[in-house]
Amino acid sequence: MKNDRIFSDRITDVPRSFIREILKVALNPNVISFAGGLPNRDLFPVDALKEAACRVFENQGRDVLQYACSEGHGGLREYVSARYREKADLDIPVDNILITNGSQQGLDLLGKTLVNEGDAVVIEEPGYLGAIQAFSLYRPTFLPVPVSLEGMDPDALRMARSAGRPKLMYTVPNFQNPSGITYSDQNRMELARILEGTDTLLIEDDPYGDLRFSGRARTSFKHLLPDNTVLLGSFSKSLVPGLRLGWIAAPSALMQKLITAKQATDLRTSHFTQSMVCEYLCNNDADEHIRMICDVYGRQCRAMLAGMKRHFPSEVSYIEPEGGMFVWAELPRHMAAMDLFDLAVKDGVIFVPGDPFYVRGSRHSTLRLNFSCTDVETIDVGIRRLGTAIRKLMGRPTEQCNAVEI
Amino acid sequence: MKNDRIFSDRITDVPRSFIREILKVALNPNVISFAGGLPNRDLFPVDALKEAACRVFENQGRDVLQYACSEGHGGLREYVSARYREKADLDIPVDNILITNGSQQGLDLLGKTLVNEGDAVVIEEPGYLGAIQAFSLYRPTFLPVPVSLEGMDPDALRMARSAGRPKLMYTVPNFQNPSGITYSDQNRMELARILEGTDTLLIEDDPYGDLRFSGRARTSFKHLLPDNTVLLGSFSKSLVPGLRLGWIAAPSALMQKLITAKQATDLRTSHFTQSMVCEYLCNNDADEHIRMICDVYGRQCRAMLAGMKRHFPSEVSYIEPEGGMFVWAELPRHMAAMDLFDLAVKDGVIFVPGDPFYVRGSRHSTLRLNFSCTDVETIDVGIRRLGTAIRKLMGRPTEQCNAVEI
Repeated sequence: MKNDRIFSDRITDVPRSFIREILKVALNPNVISFAGGLPNRDLFPVDALKEAACRVFENQGRDVLQYACSEGHGGLREYVSARYREKADLDIPVDNILITNGSQQGLDLLGKTLVNEGDAVVIEEPGYLGAIQAFSLYRPTFLPVPVSLEGMDPDALRMARSAGRPKLMYTVPNFQNPSGITYSDQNRMELARILEGTDTLLIEDDPYGDLRFSGRARTSFKHLLPDNTVLLGSFSKSLVPGLRLGWIAAPSALMQKLITAKQATDLRTSHFTQSMVCEYLCNNDADEHIRMICDVYGRQCRAMLAGMKRHFPSEVSYIEPEGGMFVWAELPRHMAAMDLFDLAVKDGVIFVPGDPFYVRGSRHSTLRLNFSCTDVETIDVGIRRLGTAIRKLMGRPTEQCNAVEI
Repeated sequence: MKNDRIFSDRITDVPRSFIREILKVALNPNVISFAGGLPNRDLFPVDALKEAACRVFENQGRDVLQYACSEGHGGLREYVSARYREKADLDIPVDNILITNGSQQGLDLLGKTLVNEGDAVVIEEPGYLGAIQAFSLYRPTFLPVPVSLEGMDPDALRMARSAGRPKLMYTVPNFQNPSGITYSDQNRMELARILEGTDTLLIEDDPYGDLRFSGRARTSFKHLLPDNTVLLGSFSKSLVPGLRLGWIAAPSALMQKLITAKQATDLRTSHFTQSMVCEYLCNNDADEHIRMICDVYGRQCRAMLAGMKRHFPSEVSYIEPEGGMFVWAELPRHMAAMDLFDLAVKDGVIFVPGDPFYVRGSRHSTLRLNFSCTDVETIDVGIRRLGTAIRKLMGRPTEQCNAVEI
């Protein structure tokens, strides 16, 4: 291959993941990393999953190791359907659930099935980088709409709508990645009123929804726009990410097309891993496991917020999440989080500067801090180091701090 | 969703899988099915895989259940690299191997990374339906080139080249699906001479390569066109299909783009299933297992060919494969395999009519017969029933035969 022209136009449109570059720095054991987006591996139910795997081998080994249907494992789809009914009062028939390789594949299949080149797609600003990457492959026109404490800006959505007749609107309404915000009920209702009667399909991506450690659950868009909402879910955050299992819950007309796309893409998701998770869920208390995760994440989140209160200059603002894995902070407007990153690395702490979460502009003053994988003591040390770096960037005297010892 | 216009143009281009419709008939226990394309489940090493899974949980449970790198599990990529060296004298560095969800995902990632709308793609005629489906999503112009006993028709390839400057050429040179043919060494060399010095990238898809039960291995295109060949491989046929593991071996410049595409598509393939297979391969004799599969498939293939000699009218021709899972037969030209299918179902036997394997025309006279999942006695009964159906279609007196008992 001597020729770069051989590549498709679409692949050149996909933004590189700056986050993956950052994570290489995280391999230094002296660096405290708030940069990742990983679930806490200490909480993985390894023994229970091992038992589940053994039972699957013993009882259905040959079945689950053979090719099987593209829609996914019947028992697992039933579990997802029953859980929607129990937890969210949603009636999602099993036939409307397609198991995917994590919810990232759900995004790819939706892009494949729905997006023609140039179609308008509303995304959150800041928004989930993985969604931007997945949709980019289908070359849409992105219409970024700002999100803030209450949710997505309704006026900006109205303007985006009149500008572009969007085909899709992508949202993470619970503990959004990267901002940690949760759309209020009022905001959801207002957004639904704007979309009602239009052709825009709303994607409610909810990977973190189970990880609530304060406040109360909000109404799913599926209740507000039942015919035009697609739900994406995942076992990556509530169980383990390494089995790559998620799902799409979609209207029937779309399901047919999604199954065709799934077959053309990789035929099906492993029925072995699906059976294993189904077996685990039938024999263990999933809610109890999720409560345990929420306890740990809630404690670590509070430690991070307390640290920020103690160690950050008062000009730095931040959003207190009700769940999920991230705190979003904002430096004074004239400061760039990228500049802070360079200083912070030297002080032995890293985070993700906001830039990759915006499709417009660069040198943003926002940063994403992950708290799921760091214990409370280390969080305090890391936030203290970060406070020191912020003060350096501001040209202020720094707190006493021995940086790179832990 | 009240509106069909919401779907992308590309998804409407994907042909439906007639094979999947056929397989519903196969659920009738009185019907002998030669229609599938499944490996024989009785040969799956369930116990050894169970042991491998237990060891993975015990030794690396938390690691392999966490997110991990997109390229795939290091040990598994090393295994694939070492096996290329050992079995095919090919030097494929580990960095040039990307683990995929079966080789079907390899096709999707290649389409994504390389094919712009309207780009010319050479495919075999008849050819693998899954490849036609995967590429269709990226809206190429297909240039079908006939394959026959020796391999792909060089003159037709020359004509296709001058017509379209193909970006890709897709081949299954060993025990092709559906025809079972293997490209001769001479044919491979001639095809390579035609492509030499051009920009066309040759995809050598080799899911069945290990399943040789007669004859000798041929030269990989990678030896003949080292810079312009992409290899696709799979553990689905030599081990089990239900874990969904395959790989792409690609030139370095393409690897970078494929990894970007993989990340946007589903982040990565499960490291748990990859570790499990790697553990299995390190502790078991993979070659011994493959020899056992080849013994069984070879015996069943010979039974099918012997049955065809005994029970088919002499006007029906067929190709004797050196390996793989399929025999390809051809009725006299004026007869349509679809018409035979309707008669054969009534006689209690099914197969796949050739039509879905061609992008041009319909009512072909060819048929695909799978022998991997049926024991030799049942094969004889099924082929006898099929012979009866062929005679009915020809308007000839039929053999004595009690049809639907088994």
